[in-house]
Amino acid sequence: MLVNGLPSDVLSVADRGLLYGDGVFETILCEAGRPVLLAGHTQRLENGCRRLGLAKQELPTILADIREVAKQDDCVVKVIVTRGKRQRGYVYDKQDNTSTRIVYRDDLPNIPIDYYRQGIELTKCEYALPDNKQLAGIKHLNRLDQVMARSEWEKEFQEGVMLADDGRIVEGTMTNIFIESNQQWLTPKLENSGILGVMRQWVMRNSYRAEIECVEKDILLTELQNAQSIFVCNSVVGIWPVTKFEGKDYPISQAVSSLMQEANSTLTNLYPV
Amino acid sequence: MLVNGLPSDVLSVADRGLLYGDGVFETILCEAGRPVLLAGHTQRLENGCRRLGLAKQELPTILADIREVAKQDDCVVKVIVTRGKRQRGYVYDKQDNTSTRIVYRDDLPNIPIDYYRQGIELTKCEYALPDNKQLAGIKHLNRLDQVMARSEWEKEFQEGVMLADDGRIVEGTMTNIFIESNQQWLTPKLENSGILGVMRQWVMRNSYRAEIECVEKDILLTELQNAQSIFVCNSVVGIWPVTKFEGKDYPISQAVSSLMQEANSTLTNLYPV
Repeated sequence: MLVNGLPSDVLSVADRGLLYGDGVFETILCEAGRPVLLAGHTQRLENGCRRLGLAKQELPTILADIREVAKQDDCVVKVIVTRGKRQRGYVYDKQDNTSTRIVYRDDLPNIPIDYYRQGIELTKCEYALPDNKQLAGIKHLNRLDQVMARSEWEKEFQEGVMLADDGRIVEGTMTNIFIESNQQWLTPKLENSGILGVMRQWVMRNSYRAEIECVEKDILLTELQNAQSIFVCNSVVGIWPVTKFEGKDYPISQAVSSLMQEANSTLTNLYPV
Repeated sequence: MLVNGLPSDVLSVADRGLLYGDGVFETILCEAGRPVLLAGHTQRLENGCRRLGLAKQELPTILADIREVAKQDDCVVKVIVTRGKRQRGYVYDKQDNTSTRIVYRDDLPNIPIDYYRQGIELTKCEYALPDNKQLAGIKHLNRLDQVMARSEWEKEFQEGVMLADDGRIVEGTMTNIFIESNQQWLTPKLENSGILGVMRQWVMRNSYRAEIECVEKDILLTELQNAQSIFVCNSVVGIWPVTKFEGKDYPISQAVSSLMQEANSTLTNLYPV
């Protein structure tokens, strides 16, 4: 574990990352020490820092930290950037470039191969994801919405879809969601809430390889229920087909299988097919 | 500084308080070591823990920590309770009562006496406070909304009022707000967003001492602009009359002066008059 580049597994209790969730993070899959989808992660981190007014991070420094903790291993690396320790109160001095950079590794998650081959069961979260254009898209440290939504079930489901107050679907608690409808993949626009997923971006850019068009739009719960197929994705687990939702079965479509194959062969074979 | 009762000023970088803002906090004014408005703080902390499913905290333990860090001094004590260090991911085991309890002291804020005697200038924040009934009222660690709103100005104003998307006023970035209108004090209902302030509660319960009725209701910006008088409050600074808002002057009403006197004589003379 590194804190500002030095070996440490602790941070000051007066750090604004703890006090206010005043920071951003990335969770990066590493294969034999190589960060998968690295550009997507670093771009989102940079965007998040800019939008929150956090100190600009030097990319080579972040990369050196990631390499140091990942070594040559398959693992997950977490990068957190906070506004650091400052004077008390919400206000911060914009001339002060203090930040805290935390980089550490975790083991790979232990995911049953069936999640890829047979698909997962999705539930609908009762917890409504609040709209907030001002922070939409950013992977910031204010994640109580996800914690509360995820607490609605234990092991009965593998993921839950969160809806906005008006019934639009937004995302999974830890994934983005896509539905297949009329020979298109549809995924929610994330202008009002949600996290702009790195794997979501990869899927949108590579859907043509599965010979399918991908469109961002507002999607209502009924459209999800009536979808021809459904999948969720994030950069750590890859793509999980959804084969059950609210008691109804959904197939793993040919297009999803193709894209999973593509991700496995071009990104990392840590995403099984 | 105490972490789980032991002297420490650091916490694990894998604590959910940092990772997700998964916790609650209180900021308590202490006069000669005595916590002011203690019951309000401990009740809110208990409510917050219950609503977020955090481990119930033992009140005598919290009190012992506060006494130990406050000693016999005038100071501000911060109490933070998080869900602690757990396995990776948003999910948490509900049978696991792990939590992290952080208690430490800061110096009293250095507040000019003029803020009490001449009043403060309030600004209107452009940042809209999102509605979220599910977390409304709780003093949780997800405070990016307040950080972003407070970053709109530096020292030109002493506080900013945050509005909901539909134009209702909700609260200040670090205070609750009251307006005087038709011989009543009105304060926003906080069912959709905002923090249920301990000083707000005291004002509502003690307004009769200033011979004025206090009512919670939805309040639009125009009602704030047309108010006969305005004040903001929190348990650390007490009551600040607002004497300027959007270029318009507001008086310090007799009722506000009476209540400030009451707070000074019954709560603590650290709230100047």
